[in-house]
Amino acid sequence: MNEFKSKIRTIQWIDTYSRMVDQTLFPYEFKYIDIKTGQEMFDAIKKMIVRGAPAIGIAGAHGVVLYAQELENENLSREDFIKKLLEKADYMATSRPTAVNLMWAVEKQKEIIKNSKSDIKGLVEELKQNGIKLENEDIEINKKIGDFGSTVVPKGASILTHCNAGALATVGYGTALGVVRSAFAKDNSIQVFADETRPRQQGARITTLELTMDGIPTTLITDGMCSYFMKKGMIDMVVVGADRIAANGDTANKIGTYTVAIAAKYHNIPFYIAAPLSTIDINIKTGDEIPIEERSHDEVTHINGKPVCAQGVNVINPGFDVTPHELITGIITEKGILRPDYNKSIAKAFKNQ
Amino acid sequence: MNEFKSKIRTIQWIDTYSRMVDQTLFPYEFKYIDIKTGQEMFDAIKKMIVRGAPAIGIAGAHGVVLYAQELENENLSREDFIKKLLEKADYMATSRPTAVNLMWAVEKQKEIIKNSKSDIKGLVEELKQNGIKLENEDIEINKKIGDFGSTVVPKGASILTHCNAGALATVGYGTALGVVRSAFAKDNSIQVFADETRPRQQGARITTLELTMDGIPTTLITDGMCSYFMKKGMIDMVVVGADRIAANGDTANKIGTYTVAIAAKYHNIPFYIAAPLSTIDINIKTGDEIPIEERSHDEVTHINGKPVCAQGVNVINPGFDVTPHELITGIITEKGILRPDYNKSIAKAFKNQ
Repeated sequence: MNEFKSKIRTIQWIDTYSRMVDQTLFPYEFKYIDIKTGQEMFDAIKKMIVRGAPAIGIAGAHGVVLYAQELENENLSREDFIKKLLEKADYMATSRPTAVNLMWAVEKQKEIIKNSKSDIKGLVEELKQNGIKLENEDIEINKKIGDFGSTVVPKGASILTHCNAGALATVGYGTALGVVRSAFAKDNSIQVFADETRPRQQGARITTLELTMDGIPTTLITDGMCSYFMKKGMIDMVVVGADRIAANGDTANKIGTYTVAIAAKYHNIPFYIAAPLSTIDINIKTGDEIPIEERSHDEVTHINGKPVCAQGVNVINPGFDVTPHELITGIITEKGILRPDYNKSIAKAFKNQ
Repeated sequence: MNEFKSKIRTIQWIDTYSRMVDQTLFPYEFKYIDIKTGQEMFDAIKKMIVRGAPAIGIAGAHGVVLYAQELENENLSREDFIKKLLEKADYMATSRPTAVNLMWAVEKQKEIIKNSKSDIKGLVEELKQNGIKLENEDIEINKKIGDFGSTVVPKGASILTHCNAGALATVGYGTALGVVRSAFAKDNSIQVFADETRPRQQGARITTLELTMDGIPTTLITDGMCSYFMKKGMIDMVVVGADRIAANGDTANKIGTYTVAIAAKYHNIPFYIAAPLSTIDINIKTGDEIPIEERSHDEVTHINGKPVCAQGVNVINPGFDVTPHELITGIITEKGILRPDYNKSIAKAFKNQ
C-alpha cells in the first residue's frame, strides 16, 4: 500500500464528545469545535460545520451517542430510553436529505439499539464503541479506495475534481482526494485542478486548503473553466465524490458535477466517482429517486455576507445534481473499481460484502 | 419593430467628454463617471469600468477623440498631430486584447485621421461626430439584432445567458439581452436564467441588475447549475454575446461560455450567439487564432477583497474561451441570423454590407 501521510483528521470521538474541524471558517481559520449534545450535532450537520457524505455519516453516528448520553441522565425505563433514542436517531437522520451515508450510519446505530441485550449504561457504551469503529473503518475504506483509484491515474496526470471529497469530507484521507493522495505517494509529478464549486465554494475554501496543507500541487479554477482546460489537453481525468449512488450507477453529487461530467464526455476524458459502498443506495433504482436538497438563496446571492447581485432577483439553489451512469467511467470503491453495467457490478459488490 | 424601452444608456459623448456607467460598482451603485482624457479612457477599459465588446468599441472611439482634443492644445504641425494621434489610437487599441470591436472602432477613427482634408480643429470635430455616429449606430444595430433574434424565441421561453451581453455591454439595448428585450416586447411571459459568470460575476452583478431595472423576470444561477436546469426542461434556448468571431464561426466569449455550449448540445437546446458584424474578424480563419486575455489571479482568489481559497494555491485565469462553430445554432446579427456553414454565411453577410 502506497500510504500517504495526511495531516488532517476531520472528526474524532473523544471520551464523551465529538471533536471536528469547523469547516464554515475556511479558508480563514483551521479550528476545532467540540460538539457535546445531540442538538448541537444536528445543527452542525445542517449548517455544514461538518460536510461531505462520509463525514456526515460519522457525525450522525456520533450524534446518536450524544443523544444516548443525554437520555441516560433522564432516569428512563430501558423501554422508554430505547423508544426515545430511536426517535432522536430518526431526527438526526433528517439533518441533511441527500447524502445517504447519514441514513446508513444512523441505521447502524439503530441496529445496535434494537439488538443490544445490555442495560442502558452498557448500550450507551456499545453505541460509543460502534461510533469509534465506524470512524476508524472510514479511514481504512478511504485508503483502499485510494489504492484502487491510483491504478487508473496516468503518470504525471492532471486530475480535475469538483467540490471537496477529501480528508475534510471524511474522517481523514478522503475518497476522490484519497485517490489523489495514493497516486501522489507513488508519483509526485501528478497535480490537481480544483473547481471552485459555487455557491459554497468548497473547492476553493476546502480542497485548496487540504491539498496545500498536504503539499500536493493544486490549481484553482472557476466552475465554468473546466472545458477550456480539457480542450487544451490539460486535464487527464476527473475524480469526484458522491452523496448518493443509485443501483444503476446514477450519482448525486455537489451541484455542478453533472456539467463537468458532460464536458469530460465531450472531450473523451475519463470521469470517475470515488465513494465507499455506504454511499450506494441499492434501494433506489435510478437517480430520479434521489431527493435533491434545495438550499438557502443567500448562498447564491451573497458571498462573505455581501450581495453579489441585484436585489429582488429570483434564485433557485439545488445543492446537488445527478450524473447519469452513462457519463461515468467507473465507481472507485473499497471493493475495487465498479464498471458498467453498474446494475450488475453494484449488485455483485454488495453480494461479496 | 417591437421596440422595448430600456432605461439604460451605458456610454454617451457629451460636448467634450465621455460619460459612462461605472460598472465596477455593481451591484452596489449605479453611478456615472465622466472620462476626460485619453489615458483615463485607456484605464477605464483596462479596469473594466466599461466592458462588453460593443461598449468597449465605442469607448475606444471616444478615447481617440479625447486624445485628439489633448493634442489639439499642443500647437503641433498638422503632420505631427496626425503622427502622434495615430500612435495614441494604436495604444488605445491595446487596452484589451480579445474584443475585436475595440480594434474595429479605433480603425474607423484612424480612417478619418488618415483621410480627412480638414485642419486640426476640423479633424477633431470630424472624429467627435464619428464617435457620436458609431454610438447611435450601435443602438440601432442592437435593435435589429433584437428583432431578428426574437423570431427564434419560442412562446413563454426560458432563455439562459452567460455573462452580460446587455444594454450595459453596449451603448444601450444589448445584443444577447437585446434579443431578450425584443422578445419580451412581443411576449411578456418569457424569462431569463442568468449564469453568475465567475470570476467577475458579470451575470450576477450586471445582468440581474439591468434586467431587474427593465422589469424582465430573471433567475440567477451559479455557473455549474446550467446542465441541471437543462435536464429538467427548464431552459428552452441559450443566447450569449461575443468578443470575437472567426471567419468559420468559432466564437470567443466570456470564460464559461464553451461549457454552457457543450451542455446545450448534450441536451439538444439551441445555442445562439448575438453580435454585430463588427465583432466578426474575417481576417482570422478559426478560433485558434483569437488571443485569449489572461487576467489577474485576484479575480479568482478574492471576492470583494477577501480571499476565498488557501494562500499559495496556483491559479490560471483565462478571461475568455472559444466555442467551436459546430456547437452554435446561429449567429444573430444586424443583417439577419447567420447559419452554418458559417464560412459561407459570414462571407455573404460581409459582401452585402
